[in-house]
Amino acid sequence: MPSCESSNNNTQVGFTTLEGFSFKEVLNSDITRKSIFVLLEKEGKNAILICDKQPFAESAAEAESWIRGSKMNLLVENDIYGNYEQEIPAHLNGVKTTLIYPATEKHILKYRAQDRYLIAETGDDYDKITLPHILESNLSVQWVYNCLDHKSEQDRLIFEDPDEHSGFQLYPDLKWNGETMENLYCQALVRRRGIKSVRDLTADDIPLLENVLEKSKKAIRERYGVNPAQIKAYFHYQPSFYHLHMHLVKVNYDAPGGSMYAIPVEVALGNLRIASDYYKRATLPFMGKALDPLCQKFKAAGKIDF
Amino acid sequence: MPSCESSNNNTQVGFTTLEGFSFKEVLNSDITRKSIFVLLEKEGKNAILICDKQPFAESAAEAESWIRGSKMNLLVENDIYGNYEQEIPAHLNGVKTTLIYPATEKHILKYRAQDRYLIAETGDDYDKITLPHILESNLSVQWVYNCLDHKSEQDRLIFEDPDEHSGFQLYPDLKWNGETMENLYCQALVRRRGIKSVRDLTADDIPLLENVLEKSKKAIRERYGVNPAQIKAYFHYQPSFYHLHMHLVKVNYDAPGGSMYAIPVEVALGNLRIASDYYKRATLPFMGKALDPLCQKFKAAGKIDF
Repeated sequence: MPSCESSNNNTQVGFTTLEGFSFKEVLNSDITRKSIFVLLEKEGKNAILICDKQPFAESAAEAESWIRGSKMNLLVENDIYGNYEQEIPAHLNGVKTTLIYPATEKHILKYRAQDRYLIAETGDDYDKITLPHILESNLSVQWVYNCLDHKSEQDRLIFEDPDEHSGFQLYPDLKWNGETMENLYCQALVRRRGIKSVRDLTADDIPLLENVLEKSKKAIRERYGVNPAQIKAYFHYQPSFYHLHMHLVKVNYDAPGGSMYAIPVEVALGNLRIASDYYKRATLPFMGKALDPLCQKFKAAGKIDF
Repeated sequence: MPSCESSNNNTQVGFTTLEGFSFKEVLNSDITRKSIFVLLEKEGKNAILICDKQPFAESAAEAESWIRGSKMNLLVENDIYGNYEQEIPAHLNGVKTTLIYPATEKHILKYRAQDRYLIAETGDDYDKITLPHILESNLSVQWVYNCLDHKSEQDRLIFEDPDEHSGFQLYPDLKWNGETMENLYCQALVRRRGIKSVRDLTADDIPLLENVLEKSKKAIRERYGVNPAQIKAYFHYQPSFYHLHMHLVKVNYDAPGGSMYAIPVEVALGNLRIASDYYKRATLPFMGKALDPLCQKFKAAGKIDF
């Protein structure tokens, strides 16, 4: 999907409306991030409108401007606290929007809200349900191998440790613009193949994790000037692809992906020191969407009730 | 701090401006939640303006209204994707605001951005740094005992298991309005005193955790009609107060508090089954603010570098 970060021209030229599009339904909404996904229709064809309220402008000049332009409607006052409904002029209260038109059924399925369920996967569940599912699904990680073999994305590479056993490659995450340090987001791909997720880790992998953690933080300090103590590093479970990779994010930033998926690398290291087979035996919860095939399999096995 | 959830009257009566207040600085900003904290001044006294962009209105009538009223400025178009800058009329694009005036230095410190650091606390660090800090600080949990002894907040109680060993009380969290199921947020206080945090848990506490988890989910289903498979339950580390309590939240909702603090209850149960003394030995990361006394103590001990 294309994106545009560079345009700051807020001229009236080119303004239009959504006339001709009729409202069908709200597909989904994110009340934390203040986003919404709406299904529209025009001339018998579907459209999806994705709206995302922008953060408040923080520079002194911009902040003065929207504060000065605001109207305040007092709701409740108590001692030193006043609660207001505030109206900021529309052109100072940006919304970034994408319109997909015409949109296919696949687009609609992608953006429509799905019920999500907490699945507490035991080691036994992994062996009987999840691992067979991963093997059957035959999900390709060819793009990862292309990176590791220097066949693609080499212009994006931040750092590489070429050691075949404990080496890795560090890239900026695709969701990061590479510039604002507040939401710094990098990803380390381990060189060694066959470690699908934390489930495959044993105490033998402690040197690998320590190496990736330490050298990635060092590379981030050198490239971006960020203090290693301000980087949080974690694995996701379930991961979005089954080749071990580490997320490295600025501590203040809540990256999308959901809090319950994140296993801090320091926790993983501690766990492997407590028991080498920790990840064979641990209960690892993850969030499943109702229509996910893996979620369906847990349902069929009587492990969740929906 | 007072809040007002009920007012929907958007009449022009009562509208005012922030005239007389001058801009001093942006204290902090939350780019994920689209909030900002600004320091203002009026007649030599400080004021804090807390602005929070509201989620998009989702009802069909409201959504039609802000879509129809929007102006769209095309930035980039590619195939079926168009990227726009969207302007929504100010009265349909709400901002909820609190003004604190006059504000004290303590208010300013509370709202000012502080650098945060990841502290990977080992079992040894807990014994030598964190536990002495907790004991010295002598932090009162009298308000918890008032709840458990039925002296306060009893009108808010959702469910109680009075058993002295494995019992608990379940309340709606103060951050939840008690009505929108999308961000359901409850808190269970265990009856037993002296369990300061997960660090004090052993395999003997497995029945306690199972009891709180199971009966809380059941009570939430009965009171609010939410499927137990759609509730995520977790402990925070460090907790905000040192009397064991469990957070229970709707799965889709990213509650404030930061992803790295959350230990899912199913994970804690699994850990205690793997090793009864797991929480004596585990590495538990937490986020420390630069000015926090505990963070300062880790710094003094040479455990973090800032």
